[in-house]
Amino acid sequence: MARTRFVQELDELRARLLRMGGLAEQAVDRACQAYIERDLARCRMVLDGETQINITEREIDEMAFDLLAMQQPMAVDLRFILAVTKINADLERVGDQAVNIAERVMDMVDLPKADLPVDIPRMAAAVSAMVRRALESFIEGKAELAQAVLEMDNVVDRMKDEAFIVLVKTMNERPEVTRQALDALLVARNLERVADHATNIAEDVIFWVRGADVRHNVTQEASIPHEVTDPH
Amino acid sequence: MARTRFVQELDELRARLLRMGGLAEQAVDRACQAYIERDLARCRMVLDGETQINITEREIDEMAFDLLAMQQPMAVDLRFILAVTKINADLERVGDQAVNIAERVMDMVDLPKADLPVDIPRMAAAVSAMVRRALESFIEGKAELAQAVLEMDNVVDRMKDEAFIVLVKTMNERPEVTRQALDALLVARNLERVADHATNIAEDVIFWVRGADVRHNVTQEASIPHEVTDPH
Repeated sequence: MARTRFVQELDELRARLLRMGGLAEQAVDRACQAYIERDLARCRMVLDGETQINITEREIDEMAFDLLAMQQPMAVDLRFILAVTKINADLERVGDQAVNIAERVMDMVDLPKADLPVDIPRMAAAVSAMVRRALESFIEGKAELAQAVLEMDNVVDRMKDEAFIVLVKTMNERPEVTRQALDALLVARNLERVADHATNIAEDVIFWVRGADVRHNVTQEASIPHEVTDPH
Repeated sequence: MARTRFVQELDELRARLLRMGGLAEQAVDRACQAYIERDLARCRMVLDGETQINITEREIDEMAFDLLAMQQPMAVDLRFILAVTKINADLERVGDQAVNIAERVMDMVDLPKADLPVDIPRMAAAVSAMVRRALESFIEGKAELAQAVLEMDNVVDRMKDEAFIVLVKTMNERPEVTRQALDALLVARNLERVADHATNIAEDVIFWVRGADVRHNVTQEASIPHEVTDPH
């Protein structure tokens, strides 16, 4: 395969991953909207959408595999392709979390509506913003944007911990809404997991752009200082 | 790099992934033992062990990257290396779940001991067996062993659903043990997630051995019927 053709294929791979990202983001937004409005129709859309996400994941993995098999990629392309396969797996799991949230909502709407001292919409907004920015950092190949996502993760972790504390207190004080409080607590956990996947994606973008591994706070930027602002 | 040398490097990669698997398996076993015996010392070991798991994950990823960069691998080797990077990520997340369980246990031991109608040790045994068999299927390159892991996942899912139902009932009927019941419920969820990772690993083994993608029940064995029993 000629180099120009190879670059076109990489662009196509990138475009497909963005479609995958759009599907995952949409699933989370729909699941959160379903929670807020106790909307079974939206739950159903999330459940139905999972098939398309799974199909898209597989297509992307196959394309990445073919690109690795057909041409010995240069280091930066290799990092890009590996980053795509990892981001792809995380996006699929974001979709799974949206399904989990939708299932919680379906449990919730069968129960009397309870006024709970937890701001799930605020947490959902923060988590959606993380996913969106992680994808933006990928589109623009900008490590700084990805870095901002890592910082947002701490905020979401704190929100989840606070939700946990107030909801356990609610369960103790108002046993009649235990199950509703548990549903909200599990939704908060699912949202935190979405945030974790957004963090993984941001780390993979940094790995691709900087050629450094920032996972587990092991930064190598010092030894590999050059930043590729437009790797293709 | 000569072919012989390349094969040696693949063996080394496999050996490292097995060490990683051993660490992850040990972490889950320790966390479950800590739950059963309310043992803070074991919790501490799980938390301390996370660093080694994270370092090992990174070393494996770097070695996989170097192997992809240095030599254009044959299709079966390429599938093997990609499977290793995916299994590696799942094992790291198994370690994360062990940490989550240890943190739950640390919460639990501060509370009065509660007799709960849930058999966490039985679920832990089933989940450990799944991780062990998934790694065995990798060592032996046997798709049948991996297939058995996929079937065990349904059993664990049912155990988690049952735990969920009885523990919510407990929270409603005995509000004084709400928090203990919630801890047990979250441990059950963490164990279910470990089982999910074991399932992912089994699927990656099948992808490597059969050259087919069994994720999301999309089987391709019919079109690619040959089975490589010893790919190296």
